[in-house]
Amino acid sequence: MMTGPKRAPFSGVIEDFKGRVACYKQDWHGGFCSGFRILAPTLYIFFASALPVIAFGEQLSKDTDGALTTVETLASTAICGIIHSIIGGQPLLIVGVAEPTIIMYTYIYNFAKNQPDLGEKMFLPWAGWVCIWTAIMLFLMAMFNAAVVLNRFTRFAGELFGMLITILFMQEAIKGMLSEFSAPEGKDESQPSFQFQWLYVNGLLGVIFSMGVLYTAMTSRTARSSLYGTGWQRTLIADYGVPLLVILWTALSYSLPSKIPSGIPRRLFTPLPWDPKSLQHWTVAKDLFSVPPSYIFLAVVPAAMVAGLYFFDHSVASQMAQQKEFNLKNPSAYHYDILILSLTVLICGLLGIPPCNGVLPQSPMHTRSLAVLKRQLLRKKMVQTAKEGMMNNDTSSEVYGKMHEVFIKMDDGKNPNTVHKELKDLKNAMVPEGNGEERVPDVFDPDKHVDGYLPVRVNEQRVSNLLQSLLVAGCLGVMPLIQKIPTSVLWGYFAYMSIDSLPGNQFWERIQLLFITPQRRYKVLEGSHASFMESVPFNKISAFTLFQLIYLLIVFGMTWIPVAGILFPLLFFFLIVIRQHFIPKYFDSCHLRELDAAEYEELEGFTPEPSVDDEDSVRSKDVQPEYASEILEEFTTNRGELKRRASSFRDGRLLQLNSVKMTREFSRTTSRIASIRE
Amino acid sequence: MMTGPKRAPFSGVIEDFKGRVACYKQDWHGGFCSGFRILAPTLYIFFASALPVIAFGEQLSKDTDGALTTVETLASTAICGIIHSIIGGQPLLIVGVAEPTIIMYTYIYNFAKNQPDLGEKMFLPWAGWVCIWTAIMLFLMAMFNAAVVLNRFTRFAGELFGMLITILFMQEAIKGMLSEFSAPEGKDESQPSFQFQWLYVNGLLGVIFSMGVLYTAMTSRTARSSLYGTGWQRTLIADYGVPLLVILWTALSYSLPSKIPSGIPRRLFTPLPWDPKSLQHWTVAKDLFSVPPSYIFLAVVPAAMVAGLYFFDHSVASQMAQQKEFNLKNPSAYHYDILILSLTVLICGLLGIPPCNGVLPQSPMHTRSLAVLKRQLLRKKMVQTAKEGMMNNDTSSEVYGKMHEVFIKMDDGKNPNTVHKELKDLKNAMVPEGNGEERVPDVFDPDKHVDGYLPVRVNEQRVSNLLQSLLVAGCLGVMPLIQKIPTSVLWGYFAYMSIDSLPGNQFWERIQLLFITPQRRYKVLEGSHASFMESVPFNKISAFTLFQLIYLLIVFGMTWIPVAGILFPLLFFFLIVIRQHFIPKYFDSCHLRELDAAEYEELEGFTPEPSVDDEDSVRSKDVQPEYASEILEEFTTNRGELKRRASSFRDGRLLQLNSVKMTREFSRTTSRIASIRE
Repeated sequence: MMTGPKRAPFSGVIEDFKGRVACYKQDWHGGFCSGFRILAPTLYIFFASALPVIAFGEQLSKDTDGALTTVETLASTAICGIIHSIIGGQPLLIVGVAEPTIIMYTYIYNFAKNQPDLGEKMFLPWAGWVCIWTAIMLFLMAMFNAAVVLNRFTRFAGELFGMLITILFMQEAIKGMLSEFSAPEGKDESQPSFQFQWLYVNGLLGVIFSMGVLYTAMTSRTARSSLYGTGWQRTLIADYGVPLLVILWTALSYSLPSKIPSGIPRRLFTPLPWDPKSLQHWTVAKDLFSVPPSYIFLAVVPAAMVAGLYFFDHSVASQMAQQKEFNLKNPSAYHYDILILSLTVLICGLLGIPPCNGVLPQSPMHTRSLAVLKRQLLRKKMVQTAKEGMMNNDTSSEVYGKMHEVFIKMDDGKNPNTVHKELKDLKNAMVPEGNGEERVPDVFDPDKHVDGYLPVRVNEQRVSNLLQSLLVAGCLGVMPLIQKIPTSVLWGYFAYMSIDSLPGNQFWERIQLLFITPQRRYKVLEGSHASFMESVPFNKISAFTLFQLIYLLIVFGMTWIPVAGILFPLLFFFLIVIRQHFIPKYFDSCHLRELDAAEYEELEGFTPEPSVDDEDSVRSKDVQPEYASEILEEFTTNRGELKRRASSFRDGRLLQLNSVKMTREFSRTTSRIASIRE
Repeated sequence: MMTGPKRAPFSGVIEDFKGRVACYKQDWHGGFCSGFRILAPTLYIFFASALPVIAFGEQLSKDTDGALTTVETLASTAICGIIHSIIGGQPLLIVGVAEPTIIMYTYIYNFAKNQPDLGEKMFLPWAGWVCIWTAIMLFLMAMFNAAVVLNRFTRFAGELFGMLITILFMQEAIKGMLSEFSAPEGKDESQPSFQFQWLYVNGLLGVIFSMGVLYTAMTSRTARSSLYGTGWQRTLIADYGVPLLVILWTALSYSLPSKIPSGIPRRLFTPLPWDPKSLQHWTVAKDLFSVPPSYIFLAVVPAAMVAGLYFFDHSVASQMAQQKEFNLKNPSAYHYDILILSLTVLICGLLGIPPCNGVLPQSPMHTRSLAVLKRQLLRKKMVQTAKEGMMNNDTSSEVYGKMHEVFIKMDDGKNPNTVHKELKDLKNAMVPEGNGEERVPDVFDPDKHVDGYLPVRVNEQRVSNLLQSLLVAGCLGVMPLIQKIPTSVLWGYFAYMSIDSLPGNQFWERIQLLFITPQRRYKVLEGSHASFMESVPFNKISAFTLFQLIYLLIVFGMTWIPVAGILFPLLFFFLIVIRQHFIPKYFDSCHLRELDAAEYEELEGFTPEPSVDDEDSVRSKDVQPEYASEILEEFTTNRGELKRRASSFRDGRLLQLNSVKMTREFSRTTSRIASIRE
């Protein structure tokens, strides 16, 4: 998909389609065979997906004066999710209404509102035209195999975009929190809850709730590696802590003294899905031709921006869900998925709801949770087989042979050749030496040890994606409950999303590096650190980062420009050109390869410990089922990217770092290692 | 001081007195010779000392209905501090009004208030009698060399007492924060600021300010090891962050909208020192004999409790200020200091102010800051000497000889024999081999390397203690500024003091251990951990901890009993008996030695790194002057106790821990080390 010569129209789509059709039956069969266990990844992704959609709905409602609300964002996510899970290419990809959609729709609304020929009334039909044009452009992209250029979108542009979203989230959180101190626009200001003292109480409660949600949510993220609690408690808090906290803080907001007027703290503004106000959106299609023709064509401009952003976001989310380390067996479908995206955008436009695209970090989270599920299923079967064999006093090679067979069967019979290599360690543990005629060694306890030798496999199927989309649809039914969430809880959640997206973004890590004095840089090397820290001189890192930072500030500034701001994605597309033609003039190509690496490569801290290769160390800790998710999380950035870990190569270049301490420590360590070796 | 046979009355005091007289002149001379640099430790200790005294004043004011306020706690701290710094024995010891005094005075007040013969009016004279009896008892303790029994107060009792103070601080913080939601007792409730909506605003602001102070103060504590900022910035924030934050939050409290009625947020209740209300306290002496005789004798009961607590607290604080690792040159003065304490208690009683005793953690903080100062002075002189010698092309042994001479001179000529040993590493670095006829090696740069080889020395003198006491006295002059601190900022400060006192308390560490599931215990061993973790079976640790926990809850429950609660120190004195006669029956003596160790012994984390001996690793990092305080902090508990660090001994006992993971990791590590050795 990434390279190759110019190809015939639709060749990519057709190829993708053929590949997915071949495994379509298995996609359903595999899901249903997992039984009730499939509910764990389903619920996990549902909560991770529904909460942002609710928050984005509130943001959209504030920014469009209630023209579009949480009802529409949930409806869109449910509809697109159901379509994608049934006829989409890659079922691991999760779709939803995301920040780019909200930003673009806000521009579209503000533009339409100020045009006498459109006005608030014609906002949705005009947005419908934007969607129609977007759908056409995406269709053309699918047709002409545009996904082959995906490799031009490097980490450089991706992380800059990620940082922009981070800033926009934080801006939303701060704006939201401050808005709690003043009456919402257009409301009757004579109400008791809009008197100064109650507005002030509302504002202070807003600060407490937002900060409370932020702090507790940040803390719950660390639960998985906490020392306390049993495995399932830690997993529960790490996986479902944030939605649970939203419920908890909402419950707390009902414990306030009864002397406080109703309406404090302020809660979600969204109407109910069955209110007349919500129902009128659904008839947008018949107003489409009431839009003046000139505006129909003007809609091409925002459509180009949306199409560009969606193409980029959708494909990157899909890439992240299919990283090499997951060992996926089924083929990718980038071209075909753009075609399906084009279809769902069209449907959303005609229904008058904001469209969806592939989302981060939910898509890789989905794959990861299915990898944990698959591991549990594999483990169960293989332990059972091993125990049966050992009970029958079979020889060790017989027992191993049966386990090998079971594994290949559960792996859907694909790639039996590579399995042999992947299970080599298991074989070595079970058949330690000789010809395998003796029995399995006593120290080998299947319950404890099998798990440590299982290769990563993902339960690839469509059921979890479909079920989670249905659950999102179900949210519309419990809207009266969702309305009880205080708005300030959502501002805290925005702040959480903002901060939570930072770790693992190398651009952010490099910005932090700019503020570390030269004497302290050795401290970074002591912990795990990105590989560029050792291979690229510091002044090059700074220059690269400063350029990126200034560019980010320009893009952020552009989003503030009232109408022309809608063109901000142009700056991103331009960045691809800059990266290809301008940057290589000023930076060494081998430095660029490190700073703009395709994979997140991390080096171990600077300790004299003999290096352990990655997979091996994962396995050694992996002896209890509950560790599986912990280990996977440790090797995953918050964006959902898997980290590759290598050991530091510790050579003379370190001396450049000019830290006496480090040099001394270094020479002492090496001499000690040498003395041990002698 | 710790052991020895029964001695003649006053023998301890006389011995202490002689010892301190011998260095009295030097105590002043050494301080003045340090010049302006002495201001750094002075200011550091002043802020660390004044802020709690202000907070305790506010607590006392709340608990005694304003009979005693911040004015009195500051006055007492200043007076006792000046006396102690001039005629006290150990000038490194810092005195102040502390939590035990506040608790006991609250009981005394509540008792007096409810007695028709005493009432609020006779509270201070009766408290004066308590002080008189306390002074007599302390005098007797000094006379009969009571300090020899100090070694009976083991870690077991000391840490239990520390945990009680922690709980009381937290209780005070929570009570204080809740009190912001209601009108203070006895105030005119018709004032606008006592209407429900404004009380609620005051309460919410209280929550925000307390939590803000708590969170920011906790964060500022970690500044020293932060990656950001230059050395002096990190030092500034770590050393003065908390007082700076109190100022910052106070300033913030003035940025509220002007529509809020005055009196919100509530600020310190204390009167000014020159108000008539404050001045009347100072004439308590003439009312002493208006107390009915029966109450004069009843005062013996609280006096016995106060005397016991003071004797304990004062001596332990003094011990902590003189830990072996500080290499102090001047003698201790436990007996003599109890005599001086008896004098200051008497004076405070007669003046109608709460008395002082030695405080933790300020006393060891004082010593530590003077160690940093001494290091700077030593470094300056020795670098200068080395440079002069190297400029003159002296031989390496000549240069080293001069530096050695300078060191002995700056060390006041004491113990020249041990200096030779302490400077051995410096000699080895400067005179690498041969007979010392060649020049100093080029790699040796005095500016960078001398610091790494300096032994710990403390600038032992009286000036910093006197100056900080004068600064506390000066606080009385700026009372109008202190009155501007919102009370909620102080509640946050109480919460901070509570949480900050936990790390380094092994009792607390063992309580946490009870909540860690067996599978996770290996994680504790991976980090630095107390040595008992490896040498005592877990069920013994649990039993010991549970006993301590139950005892703590009983003592805490006792403090809630209205009048009899004053006897709670009896439970502590009883604990000594329990520890000596009851506990050894149920616990193995070698386990007890570990669980109730005299020193805080810590083992390194469980990594295969070859062990580095403590002093060596301190030095290796110690190449930049600013690291000195960082390293010292790393090896100091929050109570001010120095940690001794040894390397984990990793033997078969580890296998008891029953963690498959650890066992595997362990065997892999040992086999890898073995393979390197081969």
